[in-house]
Parts: sequence; structure tokens; C-alpha cells
Amino acid sequence: MSKIDTRAVLIDEGLKALLSHGYEGAGIGPILKSAGVPKGSFYHFFASKEEFASAVVGSYTEGNQTVRTQLLTDESKSPLQRLRAYFEYHEQVYASENPIGGCLLGNLAQSIAVHSDVLRQELHRAFAAWQRDFQQVLREAREQGELPSHLDPDETAAFLIDAYEGALVRMKTEGSIAPLQRFKTMAFDGLLKNHA
Amino acid sequence: MSKIDTRAVLIDEGLKALLSHGYEGAGIGPILKSAGVPKGSFYHFFASKEEFASAVVGSYTEGNQTVRTQLLTDESKSPLQRLRAYFEYHEQVYASENPIGGCLLGNLAQSIAVHSDVLRQELHRAFAAWQRDFQQVLREAREQGELPSHLDPDETAAFLIDAYEGALVRMKTEGSIAPLQRFKTMAFDGLLKNHA
Repeated sequence: MSKIDTRAVLIDEGLKALLSHGYEGAGIGPILKSAGVPKGSFYHFFASKEEFASAVVGSYTEGNQTVRTQLLTDESKSPLQRLRAYFEYHEQVYASENPIGGCLLGNLAQSIAVHSDVLRQELHRAFAAWQRDFQQVLREAREQGELPSHLDPDETAAFLIDAYEGALVRMKTEGSIAPLQRFKTMAFDGLLKNHA
Repeated sequence: MSKIDTRAVLIDEGLKALLSHGYEGAGIGPILKSAGVPKGSFYHFFASKEEFASAVVGSYTEGNQTVRTQLLTDESKSPLQRLRAYFEYHEQVYASENPIGGCLLGNLAQSIAVHSDVLRQELHRAFAAWQRDFQQVLREAREQGELPSHLDPDETAAFLIDAYEGALVRMKTEGSIAPLQRFKTMAFDGLLKNHA
């Protein structure tokens, strides 16, 4: 493998391990074995497990950003239709996973955020970027009269992310995407709909 | 220590360790050291780490049940006022913790639910009991005309738990209870309020 390939494979295996075992449960040894990479090679790319996990979060965030940009700026749909398409896309992704992986950000928030400033800041950045994209689409919804007038677009953006993270936690407990479907119904038919 | 005290101390230290490190990061050795209990004594009470963690979840659930019963059946308040009191109580609890501990259920859901049927079922039971109590209070809110008519009490109960779990995840990332305050505002002034 080229250096670029090796790094990408390590990050890919790291993502799987972190999603499955959390930060403290994800061992570097098994990750290297799955990746078919010798130990010395790992430390060529990453100074520590913390730095490795930060790189995994960075790559994960980058992938999510690409999906968000594509789905949330699709001008053929109204702002709230775009937001719905975002959740429907991820529902399909999670439904196809076996076992269900869940969200790396929520996973690491539970297991490592308290112990590592580096990772906490990386998670903070990832959530902030996600929130900015939701704010943007909800501000557009407000401008187009699609958002109920009692909702603040920015607070709503943050709340939807939190509520969705919780649905993902419940999904892991239930081993089913039913909590994601409930989230969608409550968010779009309950909170975001004009009932006046 | 008596046998009852030893078991209680182990469970108490186990709770702290699980909240701080997740299932795979919580070592039995450090737990025994904090508890001042010899290794043989641990295996007198618990056959395995899995069984120990189940007992911790059981004790945690019991404590939560007591708080819920007290706050959610307080007839001096309306159903939605009781629900608000529930969240305000926990906001104070989390605000007083340093470092912020978060919710054991959400924590274990991320780290172990996929790997242990025993723990997944224990978590499922804990969430189900919580949800039944919220359903009860929201059905009362519906009967008393306090719940907006487009909301189903049972689905709303489940959604509020999910959304709250997500706010707790975000709280751990931010190291602040601001997400809990946002949850309260969005739930009570957004979702649960009649805007008609």
C-alpha cells in the first residue's frame, strides 16, 4: 500500500473499532491487525491513540460535510424538504448496517470527551459545523414562511441535532431504526409544522 | 463492612467508573481499589463484569424510579408542570457534578449494547419503565387538555426521552448544562405548547 492508502485504511478500521467499542475499548493492536499494517507504521502516521482518534473524527466530519452540502443545498426542494431528505438518507444508511454502528460523535462524547481536551475540541468543532448547516437551512425556512413563527432557527437547529443524537442512542439500545422514524415524525409533524 | 454494605459500595464505585469510562474502559481492578474490597470478595457477589454492570444498571434504575414516582405523581402540579419539575430537578443534579457524569443508560447504550444481550435487555427495561411513567403523565395532560391535540401522548413520551438523552450527550461534549436548558425551552415552549 502507498502511504496515503495505509493512512486511509487505518482511519477506516479505526472508525469501525471506535463505533463498535468506544474510545477506551478500541485497541490499536486489533485495528492494525484488521488493517494489515505493522505497528511501526502506525506511529509513523499518528503520535498517539488520541491523535489517531482525532484524525478519525476529522475524516468522519469531512464525509458528513460532503453529504450535508449535497442534501441541504438542493434548491429543487424547500428548506424543510431538504432537512427531511437529510434524515431519510441517514435512516437508510443506519438501516443497512449490521450491527448498527451509530454516530461517532455521540459515541466519543460519552466515552472520552471528559478525559481528552483534544478530542472534546474536535467533537465540539464537528457539532458546530453540523449546527451551522442546519441553522442555514432553518433560516431559509424562516424566510420562506415554512418555519412556525414561535421557533428560533438557531435554537431549533441545535435542538434537532441533540434530539437526533438521542434517537441514535436509543437505536443502539433497541437494535432498530424505529427511534429514527419516531424522531422524524415528531420533528416534522410535531415541532416544525404550523398547527395554528 | 457487612455483605450488604460491600455490595452497595461496589455498585456505587461501579456507577462512577462506568459513567466516567464506559463499559470497556471501566476496569474491575480500579473499582475494587476505590471500594477497598479484595478481588475474591467481588466474585462472591458477581459472576462477571457483565453481571456486575447489570446490577449497577438495576440500582441506577431503581433510584431513578423513586425520583420519578415522587415528581411525576405530585398532584399539587398540573401534568406538564410535573414533567418540567422532573427535568429541572435533573438539571440541578447534573449542574452539581464535576466532571459531568451524564446518563448511565445512554453511556452503556453506546459502548456495550451491541455486544451484550444481557445488558441490552437491562437497558431496554430501564428505558421502558421510564417511558411508561412519561406516558402516564402525558396521558393525564391529554385528559386535562394540557397537551396540544396533534401530539400522541405515547409517541411524545418516547420522543422526549430520546431528545433528552441527546441533550445529555451534547452536555458531555460541551461540559455545560446549556443543552439541557435548550431541551427544556424547545420541549415546553416549542413542542408541548398550544400555538393555535
